[in-house]
Amino acid sequence: MASSNIVEQLRQALGPSAVLAGDDIPDRNLQDWSTLGPVRPQVVIRPSDPQGVATAMRIAAQHGIAVVPQGGLTGLAGGSRPIEGGMALSLERLVGIEEIDPAAATMTVRAGTTLEAIQRAADDAGFLFALDLGARGSCAIGGNIGTNAGGNRVIRYGMMRDMVLGLEVVLPDGTLVDGLNKMIKNNAGYDLKQLFIGSEGTLGVVTRAVLKLFPKPACTMAALCGLGSYEAVLELLASARRWLGPTLSAFEAMWPDYWEVATRRVPNIRRPIAGDHEFYILVEAQGSHADDARRFDSWLESQAEAGTIEDAAVAQSLADVKAFWGSRDAAADFKLVLGPHSSFDIGLPVAGMDAYARACRALLAAEIPGCTSYFYGHIGDGNMHIIACVPGADAQPYDAIDDVVYQLVRRHGGTISAEHGIGLKKKKFLAYTRTPEELALMRVIKNALDPQGILNPGKVL
Amino acid sequence: MASSNIVEQLRQALGPSAVLAGDDIPDRNLQDWSTLGPVRPQVVIRPSDPQGVATAMRIAAQHGIAVVPQGGLTGLAGGSRPIEGGMALSLERLVGIEEIDPAAATMTVRAGTTLEAIQRAADDAGFLFALDLGARGSCAIGGNIGTNAGGNRVIRYGMMRDMVLGLEVVLPDGTLVDGLNKMIKNNAGYDLKQLFIGSEGTLGVVTRAVLKLFPKPACTMAALCGLGSYEAVLELLASARRWLGPTLSAFEAMWPDYWEVATRRVPNIRRPIAGDHEFYILVEAQGSHADDARRFDSWLESQAEAGTIEDAAVAQSLADVKAFWGSRDAAADFKLVLGPHSSFDIGLPVAGMDAYARACRALLAAEIPGCTSYFYGHIGDGNMHIIACVPGADAQPYDAIDDVVYQLVRRHGGTISAEHGIGLKKKKFLAYTRTPEELALMRVIKNALDPQGILNPGKVL
Repeated sequence: MASSNIVEQLRQALGPSAVLAGDDIPDRNLQDWSTLGPVRPQVVIRPSDPQGVATAMRIAAQHGIAVVPQGGLTGLAGGSRPIEGGMALSLERLVGIEEIDPAAATMTVRAGTTLEAIQRAADDAGFLFALDLGARGSCAIGGNIGTNAGGNRVIRYGMMRDMVLGLEVVLPDGTLVDGLNKMIKNNAGYDLKQLFIGSEGTLGVVTRAVLKLFPKPACTMAALCGLGSYEAVLELLASARRWLGPTLSAFEAMWPDYWEVATRRVPNIRRPIAGDHEFYILVEAQGSHADDARRFDSWLESQAEAGTIEDAAVAQSLADVKAFWGSRDAAADFKLVLGPHSSFDIGLPVAGMDAYARACRALLAAEIPGCTSYFYGHIGDGNMHIIACVPGADAQPYDAIDDVVYQLVRRHGGTISAEHGIGLKKKKFLAYTRTPEELALMRVIKNALDPQGILNPGKVL
Repeated sequence: MASSNIVEQLRQALGPSAVLAGDDIPDRNLQDWSTLGPVRPQVVIRPSDPQGVATAMRIAAQHGIAVVPQGGLTGLAGGSRPIEGGMALSLERLVGIEEIDPAAATMTVRAGTTLEAIQRAADDAGFLFALDLGARGSCAIGGNIGTNAGGNRVIRYGMMRDMVLGLEVVLPDGTLVDGLNKMIKNNAGYDLKQLFIGSEGTLGVVTRAVLKLFPKPACTMAALCGLGSYEAVLELLASARRWLGPTLSAFEAMWPDYWEVATRRVPNIRRPIAGDHEFYILVEAQGSHADDARRFDSWLESQAEAGTIEDAAVAQSLADVKAFWGSRDAAADFKLVLGPHSSFDIGLPVAGMDAYARACRALLAAEIPGCTSYFYGHIGDGNMHIIACVPGADAQPYDAIDDVVYQLVRRHGGTISAEHGIGLKKKKFLAYTRTPEELALMRVIKNALDPQGILNPGKVL
């Protein structure tokens, strides 16, 4: 009874095409990219404007039913997995770029717009939108904001948080809060947008955002280097920061086990350098001047002469740059080779990343028979990814793998999530990274904004 | 009775040297740098460790008395002005640098440490701490964090918020929250530090912070340019962003009235270029390579050839760079020339800043007989400063000046504070920049963290 009431009320308020119930609910809304299985919500709402989101939220609050915001559903932690009997609030029809302001170097977008559409629109207008990550073609900017996405160029441009100037948000009680600020500096009261960035849709639903644009780089340089030790990796990173200064745009590391699978077993991936090395480093710089390419080359030569680099391939074209990234992006295709697996986005002190990798590889192999693990990541930011599984096993020992990885993170003073967020999957490990006082304060904030506990309940906390 | 009880309880808990009451209260704790007069608190507390801050806060909460955090007391908005009968919680003895971690490029500091001490320690360790502002010798880093300080190099390094990786904070109930994160990327739950940065000590008292360090620049270039129109200023800014890329570290504008006072009436200020111009621009870049100096010079030549610049002086030494900044920093000495005056830190869309300046100058002169006004600021960030007064008047018409300035800000779509904060002075204008929904949400946050309303009450909201 109550259920059909809500659906009817939503249909009347938002129009029939915005409300899907029963068999009309598409499979895509049942789950995200995490290993958690599908869940069927009571109703899927697809408003086409911010007022529609506010209306849906207000009706949900009246009925006290749980609401799960959904964007591109590419999350890896289960943050947008629906709740049985609840409402999935999809932003798939709240799309489009509303304005590009060249003088302010800003873009105003709707939350359901894909990252790739935003990157292209910025490029067409002569700017760079600096966030970039593997799921660019599917992920929605609202989800990037909700998870404070990181990705490939954090070392230069920062995370999603650093690219948001203003937000429009719907609160759990249905209030629409317009904070579409376009100014770089605005200290008039609390900076409310910070509450919603990275809180995984538990405090409000982002409907529109003002994004910061950067000048388009004049040239992009990249090299793939083979190194003989982790000390050499740290030396190369330090010298890249000094020589390349703020042009340094990526510094990615791949450990040998990863490199082997990425370049020998994943299809269509080039192997830009031959020979075996202890580390494979992809370093990229974006210049504002043709000179910067020469500077990159002479830096690389100096590192080879000093013996820091054992071997290196330098990109001669943008096609080469893309091919170099291919080996790094191959992680997305490890499932073709390995089948189902766990993936991680832990953070660690940079100096201790190799020690962690060695310890983790050994412990996984010792405690879980047949377990193999692959290490790579945004090493310049202290962010390591891990892929782990027992190849060919009927059921993956997900929980056992989690336990090893996260207990070691705790011991090494790291964080259980550098960029993907907590969602459902990492909740039980949150206390490994946060103190009881921090967790209590998070609950105070959650209760203050969502006293009914209806917005994405059970996620993060 | 209650009063002497508290003082006694504080003395027993913190030791007698940490507790000053009655005639022992120093004049310095009675006011900040705003034009608001002195106020005598009941007691001044000077804990020497974070636990002492927590203890003092807990005792204040028991007695329900108001607590005002104080750092260097250089604020311009009255945020650290004490409250009659309340407690001034001074961080002047919670000072020192606890750690510099070269591998992580971080520094851990106590909240009462001056900005200058932090800049020097970073420099000694081979790094740059990028925040810089006129009050560097007196202001405390805890206050810089509380106000989300901006300053001279936001265009390159961002504001204080962008340089904080972790915070330790005492909540209004006396809970000590350790969030001294050192990692660049950490998405494990809500990013709680964002609540305390820029909330002007109304949500918690910062006791320690982990700060982000940058590589020290290899060279600093600067030029002082005379330009003939605001269109030329915008052209120069756009071309500086393109050519100089991320090396661009400051782009400061001075309008002619300001220039006249700064270089002809303030003592000991050089006038690096002769002649009269519509705009005086100080542009600075920090390079990671000697080449960057040549690039800066050739950029400047191209701008002169294109006619964008009418005249320019290029710094030949660091002494020149300092002298160029002298004309910009002369604002701090306008009081010697003009006497008491109002000063503002408004934010505006960059393209509309000159239109605002013209309108504001005209309206101040029309509505307030004898009122003169001087415009300058961090134009690359959309942040304009204004100094305004009626020279020689017995009492300055502060309220009338505020009304003109802020009503025009509202009309031009700006913000009443780009960097100094709201404190007491701008409270009544906050609704010019924030919507009713935003203000209501700020109150929800304030009530959730400080239900008794004892931490810096009456500030901001």
